[in-house]
Amino acid sequence: MGEVKLLGTTQSFPCARIQWALRLKGVEYEFIEEDLRNKSPLLLKYNPVHKKVPVLVHHDKPIAESLVILEYIDETWKENPLLPRDPYDRAMARFWAKFVDEKVVIAVWGAFTAEGEEKEKAIESALEPLANLEQQIEGKKFFGGEQIGYLDVVVGWISQWLNVMEEVGGMKLLEAERFPFLHEWGQNFIQAPAIKECIPPREKLVEYFHFSLSYCRRSLAAHKP
Amino acid sequence: MGEVKLLGTTQSFPCARIQWALRLKGVEYEFIEEDLRNKSPLLLKYNPVHKKVPVLVHHDKPIAESLVILEYIDETWKENPLLPRDPYDRAMARFWAKFVDEKVVIAVWGAFTAEGEEKEKAIESALEPLANLEQQIEGKKFFGGEQIGYLDVVVGWISQWLNVMEEVGGMKLLEAERFPFLHEWGQNFIQAPAIKECIPPREKLVEYFHFSLSYCRRSLAAHKP
Repeated sequence: MGEVKLLGTTQSFPCARIQWALRLKGVEYEFIEEDLRNKSPLLLKYNPVHKKVPVLVHHDKPIAESLVILEYIDETWKENPLLPRDPYDRAMARFWAKFVDEKVVIAVWGAFTAEGEEKEKAIESALEPLANLEQQIEGKKFFGGEQIGYLDVVVGWISQWLNVMEEVGGMKLLEAERFPFLHEWGQNFIQAPAIKECIPPREKLVEYFHFSLSYCRRSLAAHKP
Repeated sequence: MGEVKLLGTTQSFPCARIQWALRLKGVEYEFIEEDLRNKSPLLLKYNPVHKKVPVLVHHDKPIAESLVILEYIDETWKENPLLPRDPYDRAMARFWAKFVDEKVVIAVWGAFTAEGEEKEKAIESALEPLANLEQQIEGKKFFGGEQIGYLDVVVGWISQWLNVMEEVGGMKLLEAERFPFLHEWGQNFIQAPAIKECIPPREKLVEYFHFSLSYCRRSLAAHKP
């Protein structure tokens, strides 16, 4: 099926999504580690609009945006389908994927970076979309049913990244008592062979989130009136 | 193929996307006009997460989010495909659709609502993503090629909505000299039978955007420190 390259960083969860999907499909690929503080000419050439990772390059043709890449992978390598077969189930998976990127990620990031009296409110705002996800996984092993599918791969970052963000950001969101089903799902997810091969080492994520947090707070402080 | 209902408003362009797609497919549907200042129990029941239009209801099962609905329509009624057949072309159509919703819409709205010395800068920021779209349509009749497709339906709002926003917001973005290809595309698009049947009357949009603008400015003023 031609040469497959992935431009990414080890600590980026949108990049992990793509690595998980390729491994679930059994597709061989070359991972090209990017330094986002010094973006490569290849990244600027292949994603001139957003200049962001991940970028999948297949037959020298680039695709950006993790959700778009996942659909491409599922349509190109048809074994072990990621999306469900039924159009309505596919629509639900896409709806919740969009929800994760537009609501959960933003709210969790807000809770992670908030300080002082805003912290508690930001944590409350993050618990709400997580509760929506909890409802979706209740009574199922994976979002995709018995097998890991598209939505599992999209939600996958809460299995390891969120845990480190909680530690670095001094907060607790995904408590087992509050979110028993998400909690159990996370443990099942992270143990699957294709997934655990591509979970960044904890200490690398700790370092990354410490850096992100201080960078973000410095920028905020610089923009305060 | 069962009963099809669409909960929407006449002046919402995400709702127009769905009406255009259904008409291009020749699917009969019932349009249920929502009053967003007094949301119906049906809307709250069918889209409890976002409480927004459009919601497509097929066989009593609801789907929200216009891009998700478009994919569902294309997978359910296969005649006159909206997305291209080739996986790479599909990925490109999805990439640009996401770009429209995340970059173009936001930037155009910013230019529309900006005032005073911020106006010029906001207009510049909106011209940039429009220039990306201009590159995509150059040399083609439609984004989908010879026929109207998925990306045409997604970009479609700039054919009529943007024009009214320019008038109401006191700005000019889509000048024919600057964007000749987008300009010509808009004229071809709006003349297609399935499209022009579902373009809201100009005066209705003028009224809607006047209301939106004063509402938005009142909210901004109320939140100023």
